[in-house]
Amino acid sequence: MDHPRFASFSIGPRKGYGLIVAGGVIDLSARFAGRFPTLKEVVEAGAFGELLATAAGQKPDHALDEITYEIPIPAPEKIICVGVNFPDRNAEYKDGQAAPANPSLFIRFPRSFTGHDRPLIRPPESPQLDYEGEIVIVIGKGGRRIAEADALSHIAALSLCNEGTIRDWVRHAKFNVTQGKNFDRSGSIGPWLVPYADESQLADIRLETRVNGDVRQSDRTGRMTFSFRKIIAYISTFTTLVPGDVIVTGTPTGAGARFDPPIWLKPGDVVEVEAEGIGTLRNTIADEV
Amino acid sequence: MDHPRFASFSIGPRKGYGLIVAGGVIDLSARFAGRFPTLKEVVEAGAFGELLATAAGQKPDHALDEITYEIPIPAPEKIICVGVNFPDRNAEYKDGQAAPANPSLFIRFPRSFTGHDRPLIRPPESPQLDYEGEIVIVIGKGGRRIAEADALSHIAALSLCNEGTIRDWVRHAKFNVTQGKNFDRSGSIGPWLVPYADESQLADIRLETRVNGDVRQSDRTGRMTFSFRKIIAYISTFTTLVPGDVIVTGTPTGAGARFDPPIWLKPGDVVEVEAEGIGTLRNTIADEV
Repeated sequence: MDHPRFASFSIGPRKGYGLIVAGGVIDLSARFAGRFPTLKEVVEAGAFGELLATAAGQKPDHALDEITYEIPIPAPEKIICVGVNFPDRNAEYKDGQAAPANPSLFIRFPRSFTGHDRPLIRPPESPQLDYEGEIVIVIGKGGRRIAEADALSHIAALSLCNEGTIRDWVRHAKFNVTQGKNFDRSGSIGPWLVPYADESQLADIRLETRVNGDVRQSDRTGRMTFSFRKIIAYISTFTTLVPGDVIVTGTPTGAGARFDPPIWLKPGDVVEVEAEGIGTLRNTIADEV
Repeated sequence: MDHPRFASFSIGPRKGYGLIVAGGVIDLSARFAGRFPTLKEVVEAGAFGELLATAAGQKPDHALDEITYEIPIPAPEKIICVGVNFPDRNAEYKDGQAAPANPSLFIRFPRSFTGHDRPLIRPPESPQLDYEGEIVIVIGKGGRRIAEADALSHIAALSLCNEGTIRDWVRHAKFNVTQGKNFDRSGSIGPWLVPYADESQLADIRLETRVNGDVRQSDRTGRMTFSFRKIIAYISTFTTLVPGDVIVTGTPTGAGARFDPPIWLKPGDVVEVEAEGIGTLRNTIADEV
């Protein structure tokens, strides 16, 4: 059976969320906004089951072509991204360094992302817009110093990320990738949240990124250097995780920067990030206007 | 004349903000909370003048020993920190690299900070808690691609930061300082906001950090590698700045890591960060309990 899919969307100025079904979306924000203003509060309350029960048997309120997808958690307290987390990614850096002992982490602001089916924006400052397909975990139960053995029980939902990057701005300064990872709307999260129930949803699923239909990245989560358990345990060592926190868990080899010569995204390109059981996140590329 | 000082505070479970005066604090949240829930909304509305007018002639509502200082903007959209921004700081890294062309930037979460007069927390994971005294600018008027010539007009207020750092966790992974900069309550911001009105408040002021009374860091903002104007212009190139955004502008040479052998902070130490016209941010060190 397909997993349920909860999306955040807008229709004109109104923001909402709902269940994606055949032929449209069942608007659950219209029914639950008082208790749960956004999907963050749904996640915090562990209320996916209640929403599903309410949606059962309902007809879609809006057709899919009426909604604009928003990032699923509109304002998480944190969006933490893991770098260099698949085999051969460390070697791609050609810096002679051994495989790292701990995950590299950086932070993105929500405004660096847009939703599914909306353009990723190539800014006038650089032609080096690149894709990175990644799996997203959303924290449901907060905590500090979470043990690896308990870590998966802190996950509320899964999603996908195109962790779009302005490559030359990643190494613009002495340290840190902040600026190359935070151009407004240079990446995307979505299309939706899939509630997390079972380790099989994550343990060894295929993650693939295609550009104009060509497969550029393809690997399996079973090969990740740092497991989902390790990532949650490690991050929660230094910061308290809270419901709605978003962790972007790393990309396989094969980003455009790794080709010789590099192949950057250009206006009109279509990038798809797909993972088994989660869905396909699709974005076109557009120049900033 | 002294500049006015607006602080965020708590009294038990209640959060508020007010004007610090001789003998206490005039509680302005009690008068303005409907319009301005926090100082972020005050900054956004440009309402310091209105608050001052209301406070004129009022007696303090609370003694200073009744309040607990909170970080001045409780939930900014962004806290962006500048690394390596004073002379000799680049040389301190001893990595043979030339002075950088652009500022290094990293991000801290609000929960990595505590308020004035509260302990910085040394976690059990590391003895390497270190101080970094810095000047904070708070954005009042948002914008993207702000010109250097206009940049200062986007500042609403000034404050101070002890950008407390767990040194060994800064280089825990292949890239990025995220984890060493984000241990819960390892740094502080405050004591208060001083409204920004004039470039002389920033242009060449002394910034000093003392540990148990010994001066460890002392420099002047006129010597910064990247000026306040440049920092605002550069950051707003990639991300839209919004009211309440906090920029932590870099620390002078002389952190504990630079001594040979290094001198880490230990429980009971008192760290003071002082800047002319802004105030003194004071914190003790405590082990996590």
